Amino acid sequence: MSTSGAASPPEQPAVFTRIRLADRRDVPNIHRLIHQMAEFELLTNLFSATESSLSSTLFPSPPLLPFHSFTVLILEISQTPIHNAAEDDSDLGFRPITRRIALKSTIADPEASIFASPRGDGLVVAGFLLCFPNYSSFMGRPGIYVEDIFVRESWRRLGMGKMMLAAVAREAARMGCGRVEWCVLDWNKNAIAFYEGMGAEVLPQWRICRLTGEELSKYAVDEDDSAGRR
Amino acid sequence: MSTSGAASPPEQPAVFTRIRLADRRDVPNIHRLIHQMAEFELLTNLFSATESSLSSTLFPSPPLLPFHSFTVLILEISQTPIHNAAEDDSDLGFRPITRRIALKSTIADPEASIFASPRGDGLVVAGFLLCFPNYSSFMGRPGIYVEDIFVRESWRRLGMGKMMLAAVAREAARMGCGRVEWCVLDWNKNAIAFYEGMGAEVLPQWRICRLTGEELSKYAVDEDDSAGRR
Repeated sequence: MSTSGAASPPEQPAVFTRIRLADRRDVPNIHRLIHQMAEFELLTNLFSATESSLSSTLFPSPPLLPFHSFTVLILEISQTPIHNAAEDDSDLGFRPITRRIALKSTIADPEASIFASPRGDGLVVAGFLLCFPNYSSFMGRPGIYVEDIFVRESWRRLGMGKMMLAAVAREAARMGCGRVEWCVLDWNKNAIAFYEGMGAEVLPQWRICRLTGEELSKYAVDEDDSAGRR
Repeated sequence: MSTSGAASPPEQPAVFTRIRLADRRDVPNIHRLIHQMAEFELLTNLFSATESSLSSTLFPSPPLLPFHSFTVLILEISQTPIHNAAEDDSDLGFRPITRRIALKSTIADPEASIFASPRGDGLVVAGFLLCFPNYSSFMGRPGIYVEDIFVRESWRRLGMGKMMLAAVAREAARMGCGRVEWCVLDWNKNAIAFYEGMGAEVLPQWRICRLTGEELSKYAVDEDDSAGRR
């Protein structure tokens, strides 16, 4: 059974990944990742998030309960195997997921220094996922909605997006959720094929309605006060 | 200025409405309303909610904070003006909204006894709205997602759905939310025109992806255990 006597094969390039819960120290990287996502989707005109707004809404004190409110997962990569420290959120109900991914050739990441992880050890942040609970009244059960899945350009097409989505699906299934849902652009055929391959159904008929900006602000006025229609 | 000397006009039929927060006592009516909604959408095959599942997920102890988690608004109607009792949730952060709606003729509601309100006083439940927080990463701010708006058949086309949606928009605007969002079927042109009239934009390109049933259950297996790929 032992192969210890055989010659070692030539070492194949690999990268080590970890998916863990984000905390407040990750806000600068999350802010940069969201901005990159807005650039990728040609929607920087909608980008108005600040480090301060992200910090106060995603990481208030006391902290939000993972998967029961807004939840951010961070994808980190390293050239060496990743060892989870005791502080790494396992006590908050999400055990970090580590993987080794074999590469055809080593990958240069020109943004590695900008996206250094606050956890140190040479870890680099490669992506994130943001999700929160939703609810199916037909099932009478909560679900999870995935608002964002994003992997930086250097680390795409290695299965890392799927790893993050599968991590959420696993949590959802274990929590007894009825569904995991997210959105895709109808022209993004690669993404649709990828999601269908993961077992998802793309619903053709539903459209999102959005009330925002000044059209939303108008509703802040109390009709009781202004119209006296009681 | 006084018209007291003039002959009284013939009394016009009217109905009085109230929008208030639901509580656990409303579960049987909520369950019946969701089932009617499933019938209306020809989706009873997806209906699996029970009173027990609705009660434990929507009305746990301690209660969920309105508009910060799953939130149900109840629409009630009455033949006489509605007076809010002290118990009626105003202490929980949502002041009930009452209105008088003039009618062309009186309305018969064959389901009135089935949908009697647990609050008594001859109140009848005519509809509901279910919503919960969502999050815009581009704005770095929470929003509100409206999962369901439903008015029973007898009480449609009187503006009651709009009253409920406007109530949520008002709360959202006051809470500093960036958006209120919901979904509509693309063939439902009346609904789309109605929502656009309320100031909403219908997003043409986004599609919902859904992972549910056995396809979701598969993810409960821990790949760490099964594949040993660490």
